[in-house]
Parts: sequence; C-alpha cells; structure tokens
Amino acid sequence: MNAISRLISPRSVAIIGASADAAKTSGRPVAYLKKHGFQGRIYPVNPRSETIDGLRCYPDVASLPEAPDVGIVLLGAERAHAAVRELARLGTRAAIVLASGYAETGEEGARRQAELIEAAGSMRLLGPNTIGLVNLTEGIMLSASGALETSSFTAGGIGVVSQSGGILGSLLSRAASRGIGLSKLVSTSNEADLDVADFVDYLVDDDATSVIALYMEGLRHPERFRLAAMRAAAAGKPIVVFKIGRSESGARSAVSHTGALAGADRMYDALFQQLGVNRAEKFSDLLDIPAALAVRRPLSGKRVAILTSTGGAGTLVTDSLGMGGFDTPAPDQATATALRALQTGDHAVLDRNPIDVTLAGLQPDLLRGAIRTLLASAGYDAVVVIVGSSGLAMPDLMAGAIRDALPGSDKPLVAFVSPHAPEVTALLNRQGVPAFVDPESVTAALGAMWRHTRNRRDVPQQVNSAALEQVALDDLPVGSLNEAQAKTLFSRFGITPVRERIVSDASEAKAAAQEFGGKVVLKLLSNEITHKSEVGGVAVGLSVETIEARLERMRDDVHTATGTVPNAFLVQEMVTGGVELIFGLHRDSLGTAMLLGMGGVTAELFKDTTMRLLPDGTALTQDDALQMLHELKTWPLLDGYRGRVRADVDALAEAIVAFSGMAAQLGDRIVEAEINPVFVLPVGQGVKAADGVAVLAERNSREG
Amino acid sequence: MNAISRLISPRSVAIIGASADAAKTSGRPVAYLKKHGFQGRIYPVNPRSETIDGLRCYPDVASLPEAPDVGIVLLGAERAHAAVRELARLGTRAAIVLASGYAETGEEGARRQAELIEAAGSMRLLGPNTIGLVNLTEGIMLSASGALETSSFTAGGIGVVSQSGGILGSLLSRAASRGIGLSKLVSTSNEADLDVADFVDYLVDDDATSVIALYMEGLRHPERFRLAAMRAAAAGKPIVVFKIGRSESGARSAVSHTGALAGADRMYDALFQQLGVNRAEKFSDLLDIPAALAVRRPLSGKRVAILTSTGGAGTLVTDSLGMGGFDTPAPDQATATALRALQTGDHAVLDRNPIDVTLAGLQPDLLRGAIRTLLASAGYDAVVVIVGSSGLAMPDLMAGAIRDALPGSDKPLVAFVSPHAPEVTALLNRQGVPAFVDPESVTAALGAMWRHTRNRRDVPQQVNSAALEQVALDDLPVGSLNEAQAKTLFSRFGITPVRERIVSDASEAKAAAQEFGGKVVLKLLSNEITHKSEVGGVAVGLSVETIEARLERMRDDVHTATGTVPNAFLVQEMVTGGVELIFGLHRDSLGTAMLLGMGGVTAELFKDTTMRLLPDGTALTQDDALQMLHELKTWPLLDGYRGRVRADVDALAEAIVAFSGMAAQLGDRIVEAEINPVFVLPVGQGVKAADGVAVLAERNSREG
Repeated sequence: MNAISRLISPRSVAIIGASADAAKTSGRPVAYLKKHGFQGRIYPVNPRSETIDGLRCYPDVASLPEAPDVGIVLLGAERAHAAVRELARLGTRAAIVLASGYAETGEEGARRQAELIEAAGSMRLLGPNTIGLVNLTEGIMLSASGALETSSFTAGGIGVVSQSGGILGSLLSRAASRGIGLSKLVSTSNEADLDVADFVDYLVDDDATSVIALYMEGLRHPERFRLAAMRAAAAGKPIVVFKIGRSESGARSAVSHTGALAGADRMYDALFQQLGVNRAEKFSDLLDIPAALAVRRPLSGKRVAILTSTGGAGTLVTDSLGMGGFDTPAPDQATATALRALQTGDHAVLDRNPIDVTLAGLQPDLLRGAIRTLLASAGYDAVVVIVGSSGLAMPDLMAGAIRDALPGSDKPLVAFVSPHAPEVTALLNRQGVPAFVDPESVTAALGAMWRHTRNRRDVPQQVNSAALEQVALDDLPVGSLNEAQAKTLFSRFGITPVRERIVSDASEAKAAAQEFGGKVVLKLLSNEITHKSEVGGVAVGLSVETIEARLERMRDDVHTATGTVPNAFLVQEMVTGGVELIFGLHRDSLGTAMLLGMGGVTAELFKDTTMRLLPDGTALTQDDALQMLHELKTWPLLDGYRGRVRADVDALAEAIVAFSGMAAQLGDRIVEAEINPVFVLPVGQGVKAADGVAVLAERNSREG
Repeated sequence: MNAISRLISPRSVAIIGASADAAKTSGRPVAYLKKHGFQGRIYPVNPRSETIDGLRCYPDVASLPEAPDVGIVLLGAERAHAAVRELARLGTRAAIVLASGYAETGEEGARRQAELIEAAGSMRLLGPNTIGLVNLTEGIMLSASGALETSSFTAGGIGVVSQSGGILGSLLSRAASRGIGLSKLVSTSNEADLDVADFVDYLVDDDATSVIALYMEGLRHPERFRLAAMRAAAAGKPIVVFKIGRSESGARSAVSHTGALAGADRMYDALFQQLGVNRAEKFSDLLDIPAALAVRRPLSGKRVAILTSTGGAGTLVTDSLGMGGFDTPAPDQATATALRALQTGDHAVLDRNPIDVTLAGLQPDLLRGAIRTLLASAGYDAVVVIVGSSGLAMPDLMAGAIRDALPGSDKPLVAFVSPHAPEVTALLNRQGVPAFVDPESVTAALGAMWRHTRNRRDVPQQVNSAALEQVALDDLPVGSLNEAQAKTLFSRFGITPVRERIVSDASEAKAAAQEFGGKVVLKLLSNEITHKSEVGGVAVGLSVETIEARLERMRDDVHTATGTVPNAFLVQEMVTGGVELIFGLHRDSLGTAMLLGMGGVTAELFKDTTMRLLPDGTALTQDDALQMLHELKTWPLLDGYRGRVRADVDALAEAIVAFSGMAAQLGDRIVEAEINPVFVLPVGQGVKAADGVAVLAERNSREG
C-alpha cells in the first residue's frame, strides 16, 4: 500500500500534542478516533499526561512502541517541525500538521514551511494549516474538525478534497444533515507536499468513490492536476469543483488564506472545460451535483416528467427546468392511459406536465405506481417527484414509496422537497434518490448529469495536438517586435498578413498605394510605441491622391505626441467586407492559453471571447478551433446570419490552429502575442492578419 | 374594520364541511385553530356530527347562532357555491373556498367560478383553490396547510401573499425552521375576488408588517397591483417578489395551475423595476431577502467587513460579495488598533479583510468586542460575521454574543453559518441578526438592502409623464400602414423620418435621387408586404446612374416572389455614420410597453434591449429615456466610445419621449408600431427614422 493509501487508512496513529481535555482542539483527535470506532492502535504523545481517555500516553515520539502509519501533529508552528523530524526518523509513513502560521502568512511563514518540508524528508506530509482528513468508508477520523461532534454520518460515494479545513467541516456537517453519502474528505490547505492532485489520483483508484468533489482556492501544480483529472475522466468518475477567486477580492483572500497562487479565473474555466470538469456555480451545488451523479443513473435526454401532489411546487420546478433548457412535455398517450388506470380520485390532471396526482400525497401505492409508469415511459428521460406536506407527516412511508420505484429502470429519479422536511430529505438521499430543497438545485443536478453523459461520449482522454510542422527558430528577433516583424513571425507559422510595404517617406508611400490599388491604410511602424492610434499613428481609407499629405501630417502628429520624429511607416491594403476577430495569448501560473474573441466595437463591449489552455507543446486541433468558434455568441456573424455571405470558416480554423502551433513551438520564448484584427473574408478568400503584437524572450534554458 | 381586515383577524369562524377526523384535510382547520390558540368562536358545520373536537357542530349554515366573520368552505366544487350563497345571505363578511376544479381546469371550471362569484354577492371571497390564510401576529390559522402541523412559528415583520397554496406551506415551514418571523400569509390562488393587490394594500396598512414577500404566477389586475405597490413604496415597505413564468414551460404550467394570465416575463421585469419592487432570482431569496430587509437597518454604502474564525468560509463569502459588487477593504488604522487591543492570541490577522480572529470562536467576549468595533468603524457600512463550528457546539453563547453587538449601531449585521447548525441559525434570525446558509444569500440580501436604500432616494412615488402636446387624431388611417404612412404618423408626434419620396416608376425614382444627391435607398412600398427584403424589395447604395435599372429589376423580383407587380416605391436618402437603434411597442395583458434596443446585427445577437411599461395615458419623461439608454450594454457606442464622435443623445431621448407619447395618445388604437432602424447622428444632427411599421385599429369605444 502506498503512503497516501496508508495515510487515509492507517493501522496505527500517533497524536503528538494530544490533550486530555476534549474541549480543547488538541483533545479532539483522540476523542474522535475513539468515538467513531477506530479499530487500530492509538498513541497519544504528551509529556505531561500518563493516560488520555484511557489510553497510555507517551512522553515523546522516540518512546513510541512502533513507527505509526500516521502522525497527527497538534503542536504550534514553532515546535511542529521538531516533531515532524522525529516522526520521519522513526519511519512514519505520513504526518498531518494542523498548525497555521506558514506560507499563508508571508515570508517568515514560507521559511518555516520550507523547514517543515526539509524535516519531513521522505515522509509524506498533509498540510500544514490543515484540519486533517476523514475516512467515512472505514470510520477513521484523523481530524480536529468540530463537525465530527455529530455522531452519525452517511458513508457513500462522494470523495471530497478541500483546500480549506473549515469548508471540509462545513461540507461534512451539511452532507450528514441531508443523508448525502461521502467516502473520504481531505483538507490539503497549504499543500507543502501532498496536494489536490495526489488525492484526486487516490480517489480515482478508491473503490468506494464514484464522484469527486473539490473545493479549490488555486492550483499549485496545474499539470499534475490535469493528469489526475484525465485519469478520473478515463475511469468514468466525474469531478465537480467549486473554485473561489471569481472576484478580485476573493482571489486576494484565497492567497492570504492558504497561500494559493492567483491565476486568472477564466483560465480555470478553460482548464475545467477542457478536462470535462463540472464547475459548480453556487456553493450548494458542490454537494447537490455530486449527490446526483453518485447514483450513477445515466441521463440520456432532456425530457423530464414532474410528478406532484402540490401544484405550486410543480410549477416552480417546471419553470426552473425550463430556464435550464430541459423539456417538460405532456405524457404521451400510452403513459396517460397507464396513469389513468392507477387513479381513484377525480381531480387528477394527467394530460399535462407537471402531472398532478393530488391524492398521491396520501396514497403511497398510487405514488409508487405513478413513478414506475413515468420511469417506464418512452417519452421521458428522467423523473422529478415533488414531495409536499405528506413528506412532513409521514417521511418513512413517502421515502419508501419513492425508493421502491427505483428498480426496473436506470433513468434518473430525483426529488424536490417543498416544505422544510429534513427527515424525508435525508431518507431519500440515503436510499438512492437525490433529494433537493431548492428548485434551482434540481436543474443544476440534472444539468450536470446531462453534461456527464455528453462528456463520456465526447471528451478526449488524451491531449490531442495538431501535427506541428517544425519551423526553424534560429533567427528570431528578441524583445518587442514592431507590427511588420510580428506579422512576419506569424506568417512563418502559416498566418497570412494583409499585403503591406514598409516605407520611410511620402513618395514611397504613394508608390505602395499605387501598387495595391484601391484604398489603403497608413500606420506608424515602431518597436517602442504599441498604442499607435493614441499618438495619431493610424489613418484609414487613404488613396494614391491623399496618402502623401496624410503621411506628412502623421509625422507631425506623432512628433507632437511622442517627441520623436518617426522614420518608418507601413502602407497596407485596406480590407473590407470581412468579419473581425482577435487572436491572443494569455500566460499565467496555470500555463499558456489561446484567446479567441470577436472583434469590432460592439462585440468587444460584450467581451465575446473564449479560451483554451495549451498544455506544454500542444497545439489546438481543427476540431478545437471549430468548437471555440461555436462558443462565440456572435458565431452567427461568421455563419451567414440573415442572408450574409458565409465567412471562410475553414481558413479561420486553420489560422487558429497555426497560432496555437506557434505558441506550442515557441514555448517560453513568446511572452505576448496578439493579432487584432484578423479579417475573415467570404468563403474561399481566406483570412488576413491586419495588425499584430509580439514580445519574444531570449532563447530559454530548455532550448540551451 | 373593513372586510379584508376582518377576514384576517376574525372574531368568529364557521367551518363548513368540517370533519371530526383530524387526519383528513377537512379535519385540519378546526384542529389548527384550536391548536394554535384561537381566542374567538369556532362553529363547525357538518350535518353528520354532533360535536367536533369538543365543539358543538351545526347541521347547516342557516342554524349558526350568528353571522360569522369568516366562513371556511371545505366542500367540493359541486357543493361549495351553495354554502357560499348561504353564508352571504347570513351576512358573513368573507368566505374562504378551498375546493379546486374552477377556472384553472378550463371552460367548465370557469363557468363554475362565475357561479361562485355570483353566489357570494357582496361577501368577499378568498380563493377558490386556496389553502387559506395564516395570521401569525395574532395566532389565527384559517388554513388546511399541512405546514401547520409544526407547533411553533416565529411571528415577525414579513407579510406573505402567495398565488399558490403549496408554496404558502413551503414558505411557512421553511421560515419556521430558520426562525424567520412572518406576520400574515395569504394564499390567493384563483383570485375570483380578492387578489394579490388587495392583500398588498392590507399589508401596507398592517402595523405588524414591514416587508412584503410575494409568490406570483401572474397578475390579473396589473393596474391595481401598481397602485398597491406604489402605496407600499410610499410607506417605506419594500416588496420582494418571486415570479415564475420565466421559461415558456413554466408560464404554461402557471396557467394550468391557478388560471393565471400569461404576460411576457420581461414585461413583469419592467413593471417591477419601475415600481422599485425587488425581483428574487432564486426561490430561497424569497425568504432570505425579506429577512434581511425586515431588520430595518439601512445599508448606506458597499464596504463590508467580514469577521471570521474560519478562513475558508470567510474567503467564500468575500468571493461572493466581490461578484455582487461589494468592497471588502482592510480595516483602517483606527479600526485595526481597536481590534488589536481586544486580542489575546497571536495568530489573529487584523490587517486584512476577512478579519480572522481565530480564537473568537471560543471566546464570546472577543467576538462581541470585535463586532462592536467593526460596526463602529467609519470604514465599513455593514458587517458579516461567519459562524463556524463553535455555533454548533454552543449556539446560545454564540448567538447571544452576536446579538449583544447590535445596540449602539444601526448598520446591518448579518451572519453566515458555515456548518449545518440550525439551532444557532434560528436563534440569530429570531434575535434580529439575519443568518444565511448560502454565501450567495449573503450577497443577495446585502444587494437588496442596497437597492432599498437607493429606491428610497430615487423612485418616484407618482407616475411621471412627459407633458403631451395633443395631436389631432381624426384623420388617421386604419389597418396595416405602409412604410411611408407609418413614418408620417410618427412624424406627427415629433419623430423625424429620413427624407423620402414615393415614386411609381424609374424616371420618378431618378428625379428623387437627383433631388437628394449622394447615395439613396430604394424600397418597395406596400400595405400588404411587411417583410420587404425577403421579396427582393430593398436596395441600398444606389446613385442617380443606377437607380432606374435597379427599380426595373426590383419590380421583376417582387413580381416573381409575390405574383403581384408593384406600382409604388420609396426613394430615401441613405444615412451613414449614425448608430442604429430600434423603437418598438409591446402589448399584452400587463399593458403597453415601449421597447428600446440597439440595432445592427451584432447587438441584435446579444438582444441588447430594455423596456418600460406605459401606464394608461402616460408618456416617458426625458429622464426615463436617458435611464433606458444607460441600461443598454452598448450605451458606450452612443457616448463617444474609443474616441468616436458622441451621438445626439438629447435628440434621441426626445424621440423616445415622442414615441411613448404617441403610444399614450393613441391608446388602444395602436396595435403595433416599430421603427427599425432609428439612426442617431452625431451631436447636433438629430435622429432619423429610416423604416417604420404601424398597425392601427378602428376608433375605439373610449373615444366614441
């Protein structure tokens, strides 16, 4: 058994700094291990106690009778590293360090954390600043979380990894109250050694776990996470993540909480999307969605039957499902007939959905029969049953009737509980019927089920990369390129620029305009000035007749604005009739991403963009490119919207692949790159890069 | 006391069709009246019982010893009207009819409902299809809702009107579990007589009510609601509404549930916005937001202090608040000093927000002091306190410490409870500290508090209307106008059209083009064909040289497409360089609204529009028009975005006022009207209507 498995499933545990006072945090781990029935050996270590809770207490780590599988270190930051060193020396497999005051507090703390890592040597480390871990599958509590005061939990299929200890406790107690079954919960917090990827990896191999729920503040090792998430996808175990840092203040707060790295939140969005990871929108989704996925009943379409004995709540759920893109069609003939055969009352409305069986609330048999009928119907892919006040009055009877309908169908069956009725909610969850208290949760859960179905079909288990034609990179310029250099660079990788000439005076400009014919654009050419239009360095719609005078004026304007007399200009053909896009590269701690956006002022106001991460050395495929284009809200502009000519989407997709291929080949050498705008011409006429920015670094170490 | 007040606060209640079996729905009202301590007289009516629950039972309504204030009719639809008639004859003030099977079921039901109304005469009627009402202020339960099985409720300041009986029960039991205090709950359902507006009106005058929460499926009498909501605004009582029907399927379901009218959901949005009514996005907001508003502590800014003893939850709330536009600045010098003076531990982090007082969880004094300090700080407008596992271990101590900090400040203090800790949550709510279990609820609640602050400053208590210059309406055409007629109509009300000439052949067209100079547009002119471009009836960018041939081709194209040879065309000046907008009228059961949208294909893809209802005879003011323009996401296009020329916004606002004034003056006579596009030219150059559609009805009865 590897160290992580042993950490989660130890045979022996030493608690360094255990207290005999169960009211203190340091008194909790021993108390919780015993209370929840740990079957292994417990070694409290404390020089000031003889026994703790009836167990022999050891004065120090060295006196322990064996090397424990796990050492829980409850000492403060100033003494924890010494205990860690002793545990490592003894041959302990893994230590859990609860103390805070490390990397999350600044430089001094970071130094202390480095010392801790050094002290651990080859022993694995969870924390510091962690609340520990909880193994509900085997009833092993290696944690000081106050949530363990609760005496009973539901073991189940959801594995939780949280970068916050407090949130671990919150999820644990919330799941317990709702009967949602969890397998393992681990708080990784500062991740000095073991991180979220390690535990995702562990949970992928854990038989008790079928869904992985993550509370994330930031990824320290994005590449390791990517690999672990791909293993999860291959194993058919969906990952649901709630990641904070969507707002600036939240991101700042995360950094000071566990020292997480701040990456742009939309880079995480791209990462999660590419890996088929479900991103939870609301905090409650982090339990609701896994609870729905854990029953492993596949949702194979979007047609939902709603069975209710209380019209208002049925309407409420219908409305929410409608907003989420689900259909709620009326029962087909055969289903309506079958339902009618069950009915005894006369006010039931069977030709509509929600299907209102008013008496079902008082007649469990009717309820059971109606659910079975709907699950068996060819017209529905899932059934939502609304639990009204009868769930309050007779929870066992109601939950039993609903549960009894499960066998015989593998379609999803979920419940919405309308009154506050915690008992029936917990019963349903425990019996395999995900039960929700918010109508929006029903929709979020079914939405995630549907995405999971599609992901299983669509998401590649491997990183695909377009085959890269190797481009010679020996003679690249360095630093901030001017527009002409940037486009030359892009053209090496297969992106066609507009026709252009570098000119130094009015007569050369006129000659270039004559050569191109039609209207032209005149621009300042400079390696220093990147915002050309702000200094009067751009003029459009010029002709052979007007370009000379315009160049002279531009020279003056730029001189006035910058104090420098420019001596190089660019004359370009003026492209009209195309659709404008933006290509960009974004780099931060999460890696390099390609950004694709619709250009033009209106689309820019709506920030109509999409992004893909480019894991080291990989380029996007033609399929990736097409998918990105379809994600743009203004995609119709490229697709013949309202009788327009269709744009050259194939050429555009090739250009996207080429741009990403450039990023892949240049790796760290490319600091920044943008093409804005890329003109996409009508079908058959290709795309043209009309402006470009690139910053290249010195040849980097990987190439050296 | 008027009939509605008496209905809610009766001295005597007759229950027609009461059953001695408390397990039956018909057994509940008597049981609930007694259980919750009704002090008045209860008269069960049932010919088959002598006594019910120790009360003398009457064989029929006629034998009652007095006219009761309220009669609750538990009979089915086939017998209810007879009981209603008898109650009315006796002089009963109001009847509550629970039976379903009325207007919500179709034509036969509608007939039955009309019969019921007739039977009631001048007696007021709640229902049918209602679950009744609950008066928590006085402990009077006139309802069969199973939620009344719960033995204790919290009386408080939130009045609830629900168009669904099931949702009334849901809200009642959910509020009870969380200690959220309610005043009155009324289920209006079919609203055969008394409707949501009647009870809003009542709650405005009810001293026990400070906030009004509405569950709405649709408004039957929008104008009455508008007046009641304006009274609520004038009284400083905010209204929070959760309205379903946001999706098509939800709207359909509402119609079949209580026979609600389906109006376009965005018309409701406009109505609520104009009335300063808070629209709840999530169902849970319908309790969360009123709970926050009911404490009546004004939020006068957006700077929030977050006090936590559990870092993860603090970050979670910070992130959510950041997404909601709130600031969470670090404590200022004075506040940090004051906090430091309280501290005994050494791991507290006081220079950041969330303010992490790790030990506060175990030291109520510290918590109390820290909250007081933050409430007193000039740097904060509100305080959120995070309750961690100590709230689970010692709910009374924690809730008490937080509550104690309330006096001495009127700033909002709310709590986020991180673990599942229902006891402390309910205690806090009952003690005047709104306590939430979802981070998003904290944000929604503070957001609503902030809107309430602004509404109190900004929302007009009266309908403002631009002064209307009366336009003679005697000679208006009728039916579907052609483009030229439509623009002539609009110009009567002050909207300038583009210059144009009606022509019948090529030579007239050429003459018109010569007159205008520059490029022109040629269009088919027809009262029948509204989609001109689809039949080849629009050509742009024509010159004097090209227009003749183009007109001949257009004649042929239209002939081919429609089978008719057109004999009228429109030649227009071609406007360039302006920003395109759309003006439209939308009419449905909620009234008439003006729609304003950005034109051009890109903005159309984003559906960048906004709407205002025009209550009978009122026009928008210049201020309304400017506010609408600012609501467009593409407003910057009009406002000199990226160095563009600023558009003539004043002229545009005048045109908006004029278009709304036309709608106000024409009233029912105008069936449909749209201007698309309206070109807004640079400052000083005005706006021009370039195309128009209008359908006018015959002179209507109001004018006759």
